[in-house]
Amino acid sequence: MTILDQAVAAIQPLDAQAMAAARAHQDDLTKPPGSLGRLEELAVQLAGIRGRDGVPLGDAAVLVCAADHGVTASGVSAYPAEVTPQMVLNFLAGGAAINVLARQVGARVVVLDAGVAADLPEHPSLLSRKVRRGTGNITVEPAMTREQAVAAVEAGVAAAWSLADAGVEALCVGDMGIGNTTAASAVVAAVTGSDAASVVGRGTGVDDAGLARKVAAVSAAVARASVDPSDGLAVLSELGGLEIGAIAGAVLGAASRRMLVLIDGHPATAGALVASLLAPSCVAYMVGGHRSVERGHRVALARLGVAPLLDLDLRLGEGTGACLALGIVQAAARVSAEMATFSSAGVSGPAGEVEDGRGTVELPAG
Amino acid sequence: MTILDQAVAAIQPLDAQAMAAARAHQDDLTKPPGSLGRLEELAVQLAGIRGRDGVPLGDAAVLVCAADHGVTASGVSAYPAEVTPQMVLNFLAGGAAINVLARQVGARVVVLDAGVAADLPEHPSLLSRKVRRGTGNITVEPAMTREQAVAAVEAGVAAAWSLADAGVEALCVGDMGIGNTTAASAVVAAVTGSDAASVVGRGTGVDDAGLARKVAAVSAAVARASVDPSDGLAVLSELGGLEIGAIAGAVLGAASRRMLVLIDGHPATAGALVASLLAPSCVAYMVGGHRSVERGHRVALARLGVAPLLDLDLRLGEGTGACLALGIVQAAARVSAEMATFSSAGVSGPAGEVEDGRGTVELPAG
Repeated sequence: MTILDQAVAAIQPLDAQAMAAARAHQDDLTKPPGSLGRLEELAVQLAGIRGRDGVPLGDAAVLVCAADHGVTASGVSAYPAEVTPQMVLNFLAGGAAINVLARQVGARVVVLDAGVAADLPEHPSLLSRKVRRGTGNITVEPAMTREQAVAAVEAGVAAAWSLADAGVEALCVGDMGIGNTTAASAVVAAVTGSDAASVVGRGTGVDDAGLARKVAAVSAAVARASVDPSDGLAVLSELGGLEIGAIAGAVLGAASRRMLVLIDGHPATAGALVASLLAPSCVAYMVGGHRSVERGHRVALARLGVAPLLDLDLRLGEGTGACLALGIVQAAARVSAEMATFSSAGVSGPAGEVEDGRGTVELPAG
Repeated sequence: MTILDQAVAAIQPLDAQAMAAARAHQDDLTKPPGSLGRLEELAVQLAGIRGRDGVPLGDAAVLVCAADHGVTASGVSAYPAEVTPQMVLNFLAGGAAINVLARQVGARVVVLDAGVAADLPEHPSLLSRKVRRGTGNITVEPAMTREQAVAAVEAGVAAAWSLADAGVEALCVGDMGIGNTTAASAVVAAVTGSDAASVVGRGTGVDDAGLARKVAAVSAAVARASVDPSDGLAVLSELGGLEIGAIAGAVLGAASRRMLVLIDGHPATAGALVASLLAPSCVAYMVGGHRSVERGHRVALARLGVAPLLDLDLRLGEGTGACLALGIVQAAARVSAEMATFSSAGVSGPAGEVEDGRGTVELPAG
């Protein structure tokens, strides 16, 4: 069995019993039932993923998947393609936004080179799994072969597995690749049947002419590929990116090892969408990090049925939105682990009585 | 000059020069300009508050202001009034949601008793500034006298000042008080001229009959008071709560000492609204923690012109939403302090050239 087949086969449904127990535990904590909203939902989901409740979240990591895109030749980005390897070096030096945000929540950053069009130095935080040097220009040719698509996905699976082996319990997936919001939009358009214009945004900040070129490129690519929208590997090989494939694999690898996976912005969510085509059951392991300003991102999240935790007008990628959301997930786990219950704290419930009959805390007469 | 007058007189506008420098610094960091969205706005606001940029956020605290409400006699809450002192004890024991969330972001929790209707034990984390034992029932009488309103506000000012003296740079303000969403709704209705029905929600979880009683109570209270909507002390004394007054004072105290103040949910925002009537310039020091499910909260935020950072379906209070948002503010400050610039990292800008002319990082031929 291939690595991809192994990963898909290993994905189990969430633990319904642990989720029911977690939901009951939430209602016994010293707060009105439901009053912690999304935090309560997260605690229940986490219990379903981990098979246990009431334990703080352990180690977390950010996997930044990087690759280049032939479609940059069509003038779709505000930045030159050389920024992809430059930013990888910035990640490895610890100076990028994702490094700062990861430090803030105690997560490590690992970079996966799935197809950067430059040689990169060896580095302990760099996984070198270059499938090819950037994709083909999807407006005129497939992004990659089907075999290369499998290789990109399997690089992501292997990265997630090695992080799971190292004890990581929550994985943020992010992207780096000049041109990759165009590829992501093409993937989302093909999978959802959306018009190019409704899934294309300004990415790193193209002007109106650049935006028009992006719409035209996505439109041309989707028409050229004419792909089966339910065939994840076909969508990926025709329209995707090598980092999008690696992210798809990281999602599958995480789900197969019962890790929570936090999805970042547009390219990362396109990867998650591909993963959902390969193994629909992986969606239960996802948490939407944030709602990007990219239009296609919203379409992809809606298709996945994943509600984003944050909405902070981010459009950077790298895993930044996922990493900010990780702080919320950590908080949710900690609430479940550390809050007092009505009975232990002697606090009255809605009926006005302490629920275990131990009696209320003695207060001096008021 | 009274403490309140001193606080109001001491509030300065934000430092425009520091804000301009912070904005320029954001554009030199290794990311597309504006791509960190709300984080960039926060960094600029923080620079304006602190008069400097590029420094991580220092100590933070949560001030939970607690008091009781005579309007509970009108059947407006799902919980009995005895829960107010019980929850204060829970805060002091470290078992409530706010304690857990504060630990997660490294903030200390201080409780201010502005009018709990029970005697409370001495505790190093409890500021005992009981103005009176709960408010009057606002449906039939003023909540408190104008002198008591001033005392409640000044208790909050003093608390913020003592935290500033202790080195706190960011203050989360939260509330505890069974019945206080009814008082908050009355304050918001009076200040904004809104119908009672449009500013009343289910609070800790009243049923339909309870909701109808809340709407009737707010409607009756606002009609009875017939208060000048621009007179903050009149609104507070007629319709408010002692903790709402203390929160108003904490906001003024924080702004007067150039502390960032994170506003929590409905009662806390009602306090911020009162503060804005007493000193409009304090609004520049506010960050909206979250958007609560309470309808009146949205109305109050809109009136203040404060956009909430989070929207997580929270309706607990205590400062929980503010404290979760503090993690985002800490991240924003850290980004400004720790991210590499385009020139320092050798990353190309949109024009394709490294901006200081040092040349791009040498990459092995690709």
